[in-house]
Formats: sequence, structure tokens, C-alpha cells
Amino acid sequence: MADRVTICECFARDGLQHEETFVPTEVKIDLIGAFAAAGFTRIEATSYSHPERVPAFRDAGAVLAGLPRPAGVAYKATCPNPRAVERAIADLDAGHGATELSLLVSATESHTERNMRTTRARQWERVAEMVRLAAGRFRLVGVISVAFGCPFEGAVDPGVVADDAARFADLGVDLVTLGDTTGLATPTSVKGMFRRVTERISTTGAQAPPIVAHFHNTRGGGLANCVAALEAGCRDFDSSLGGVGGHPAQIQYGGGMTGNVCTEDLVNLLESEGVDTGLDLDAVMAASRRCEEALGRPLHSMVARAGFGLVGGKTEEKVAHDA
Amino acid sequence: MADRVTICECFARDGLQHEETFVPTEVKIDLIGAFAAAGFTRIEATSYSHPERVPAFRDAGAVLAGLPRPAGVAYKATCPNPRAVERAIADLDAGHGATELSLLVSATESHTERNMRTTRARQWERVAEMVRLAAGRFRLVGVISVAFGCPFEGAVDPGVVADDAARFADLGVDLVTLGDTTGLATPTSVKGMFRRVTERISTTGAQAPPIVAHFHNTRGGGLANCVAALEAGCRDFDSSLGGVGGHPAQIQYGGGMTGNVCTEDLVNLLESEGVDTGLDLDAVMAASRRCEEALGRPLHSMVARAGFGLVGGKTEEKVAHDA
Repeated sequence: MADRVTICECFARDGLQHEETFVPTEVKIDLIGAFAAAGFTRIEATSYSHPERVPAFRDAGAVLAGLPRPAGVAYKATCPNPRAVERAIADLDAGHGATELSLLVSATESHTERNMRTTRARQWERVAEMVRLAAGRFRLVGVISVAFGCPFEGAVDPGVVADDAARFADLGVDLVTLGDTTGLATPTSVKGMFRRVTERISTTGAQAPPIVAHFHNTRGGGLANCVAALEAGCRDFDSSLGGVGGHPAQIQYGGGMTGNVCTEDLVNLLESEGVDTGLDLDAVMAASRRCEEALGRPLHSMVARAGFGLVGGKTEEKVAHDA
Repeated sequence: MADRVTICECFARDGLQHEETFVPTEVKIDLIGAFAAAGFTRIEATSYSHPERVPAFRDAGAVLAGLPRPAGVAYKATCPNPRAVERAIADLDAGHGATELSLLVSATESHTERNMRTTRARQWERVAEMVRLAAGRFRLVGVISVAFGCPFEGAVDPGVVADDAARFADLGVDLVTLGDTTGLATPTSVKGMFRRVTERISTTGAQAPPIVAHFHNTRGGGLANCVAALEAGCRDFDSSLGGVGGHPAQIQYGGGMTGNVCTEDLVNLLESEGVDTGLDLDAVMAASRRCEEALGRPLHSMVARAGFGLVGGKTEEKVAHDA
């Protein structure tokens, strides 16, 4: 197993994206500060999506301006289009920019049309333009959505995903993220995809960027897929405290059910396996509680209820004929 | 990966054990009938625990008497002590017995004391007595609780678990179940334990019984551990529709949060991996809904909310800048 992994805490962007109630800017800033204090070195802070389209992030610049800036902590902002990168650059020029930008493509035309309102060809032109605009000023994260299955088209050709990853590598991005947008990955498909993507990138001659596992727990298999990714050599994971966010199908179908892998549960699993997350577990749990307070409801982490379960720790629990 | 696995549906016993509201006998009978109709060939139906200690099963005999008896379906009842086996035999003699009996030990003294109110030495004497009483009339399932960690003692010596499994094999039980009672197993400990138990049993000269994975999702890792067990050769799993039951710590800490692996999510994962569960997926989902109706609340399965996610299927979902 691995010695050390990096978890990017996604609560403040992917987590809040579909919340119906606007979380005040100062609360976001406090939460992100708590994430940094817990030891997260990569934090998804906001999105430069159009404020009318995704009003949860209409305060993108104000959030970034208010964040503490401890050494070694990177703040990521999502950029769907060149206009978003221009806003990111303006904030950077004003002294309060993001450290990383996510650039998004989807592996299928249908999802690109619904998510981006454009075609894959056009989106790749936009991505190239975004990379040109951002050049040298940010760490860039190339994100491939619906990499393991599409809600509209079903199965996704892994060759398309591998080609997309190689294209991001050719463009010089620093990380490539494989998104299981609607929870269709399996441990076997994860291992196969990591192998295929890694091999395909190696043919480009480009510097091979680390591959990030961005898995949703839509159907309960998120952690199983994270384990598969770990076994396939992955050392970078995205997750969200309380498991909020992910994909809005869950909001439609489940009244607040959600998609992201729960950070608390992922940290528990990794640390139980002897993998070092670099996190302060008490501070992670404190941040977890603050996320629940911010949204005013219990969220989806099991570890938030049961506590970390590192063997050797002991809890007092009543029992009665349990197996 | 495997061709075929057997899932024992545990809703009606492990699932209902800690419910505060008594589920009427006729509802239990209807639910168990729905499980059989969905294709479950092993169903945990009730427990012969003392009716005052576990009142949820005060109707054990009546439930078994009312069940449909389709060919190939085994009904399991839990037996904590010889008196329970005597009750099981009386019901069998009356023409409406269980097909399988679970015989319980715990891997630690502390859990044995709390769960069984006795010592491990005394419980093993009881188990031998129960096997003698039951001889030849039931399939016997030897269950080892807290096999992967104890809420009172912390780490559990895998050698003790392997010795317990070998002892069950020596006694001639038909299956041995490894219980991760409070969600302390990890994929690595699961693989190590299956290897160790299998090797240890092989030294006894006894017929090697299949090993059943009975994992709780206390900390979110239940499915990841099931995948590890599958990879270790396990072909028998316990789970509960809606993930109810498991370990009461969850009831204390989480207001209805729970421990069992959700059957719906396990079935989705296995079938997505091309593993044949032998189940009718539509009927599984119908049974899932009936379990929620019976308890009058949404339960914990993600698949119950999101639907089965077999790639190739398509669902209509709104999207907005998801990764």
C-alpha cells in the first residue's frame, strides 16, 4: 500500500454547488480555513461559473480574497470557459487569486451538451484557450467528467478517456482528474482505466501528470473504487466532507442524498490501511461538524456518526447478539 | 472475478434486531416472502434469542410457521444458546422449522461477556452442545463476531479468529461467518484474514466450509471490504436491504444510522462487476421499497435512491458543471 496520499477537500465547491440555500461568504471562508487547519493542502474553494447559472459561487472573488494563506495550501477554482479564466486572472492580479484552476471536459457529447452547452470539439478549443490564458500563473487540473459511464449514453469508451487525458498532458496540465460523475465506476473499471490512461499518456512524450480519482458515492461504491485506484497507483483523491455535492440526480431522486465520497470515511479507510493522509484527525472531525452546522442538517459521513475506527482505539458500545 | 455469489438477506433478523417498534408478524412474513421471490436462496428469518431480551423476535415460531416454502430457499435462525436450539428443534418437529441455525462466538472475552454474558470457554462448550443437539437436522453456520477488531479490546489477534474458524470446521459446521461487528475491517485485513483462516482450516483435516463475509458499513467501508473478500475468493455474503441493523452503536450515536452492508448497493456493485447474484433486480428494488414502508422511513441504500447503475443503462439527470 501507499505511504502518502493527497486528498483535495471539495466541500466548498463541488459540495456547495447544488445547495439551495446560499452559504454566506464569511461562513465559506471560515470553513475553508478549518480545512486548511486540518492539514488539507489542496482545497477546492469556489467556481468561476457564471454567477447567474451557479449562484452558489457568485461570491467567488470575495471568498478567495478572504481566505487565510498558510504556506503549502493550494486553493482551486473551477473554470468552465475562458471568461472564467479571465476572472481568475483578474483576482490573481488583484492579489487574491486561486492557486489552481480546474478545466473541464466531458467524455461524451451528450454530457458536454447538457453540462457545458457546447460540443466536445468546441470545449477542447476552449480548454486550449484557457491553458494559453492561464499559462504559468496557476497549477492546472484537467478534469474528465463521466469517465466511467454517462447518464445519457451509458457505457463510455475508455479509449476516448485515455485520449482526453493524453490531450490534457500534451497541453501541459499539472494533474488529470478522472470523474465518475454518476457512480458508474467499479473497482475493475477503475483499475483498467488507470492502467489505460497511464499507458496512453506515456505515448505522448509529455510529462505524465498525476491522475486524480474523483469518485462519487452515488451507488455506495465510492470507497471501493478509491481502494481500487489506490491499488492502481493513484495517490490523489477528491472528496467532500459529509459527502455533500456530487451530482444533482441525487437531489432530484433522494431529497438531499448525494454523490461525493465522504472525506471523513475516506480518511478513516486510508489511515486504517496505514496510508498517511497528512491530516489531523481531530481537526477533520471538527471541520466535519462545522460543515453540518453550516448546512443545518446531518450530512452523509458514517465516520461522522461512528468516529474514526482505527484498530487499537476502543469505544464503549452496547451489544446484543450481534454478529 | 467470480461467476456466482450467494447473498444471505439479513433484514428480517440482523436488520430488525434493534428496531424500537415491533414489526408485526404478518409484515415480516410478507417481507421474507418478497425476499424469496426476488431470488434470495438464504434468508435470515428470525432469532431464538430470549423473547424478553430481544423482543423483536418474540414471534420467531410464528414467523417461521407462516413463511412460504419455495424450493431452494433456506431460512436461517440465530441461536445464542442450547435452549434456542431446543426451540428450533421443537418448531422443526412441529413442521415449520428453520433450515439453518447460526451459532455465535465472539473473538474477544470482553465482547463475549457483553454480548453473551459468558466466557469464551463456556460459549464454546455451549456451541459444542448446540451442534450435538442440532446434529443432522439443520445446516449450521458458525459465526465469529468482532473478527476484525473489538469495540472493547481494540485489535483482535487473527490467530484467535483462525483457531475459532478451525474449531467450527472441526465441529462440522456447513459455513463459517467472519463478522466485522463494528466496522473495523479494511481491505487489507480482510484479505489477510481470509488467507489465514483458509490456511488454518486446511490444517485440521476437516471439510473446509465456505467462509461468509458479514461486514458492517459502520464507517462506510463495507463495500470496499466486500470487494476485498471477493478478490480473496469469498463467494458468500451477508447484507441487509436498506442497510438496517448491524450494530447498535449506530443507534446510540447516529439516530438510526446503521451498520449492515446495504443489499441493494452490494448487488449493484457485484452485478456491475459481472458477478452473478442470481437475483431479479426489479424484485430486489421492490423488496427494498417494502422494507422502507415496513419501517416507515427512508433507509440507507444509495442504490434505492439512485437506481441500479449498470453501465449501458441510461437515466435522465440534470447536470451543471459537475466533474
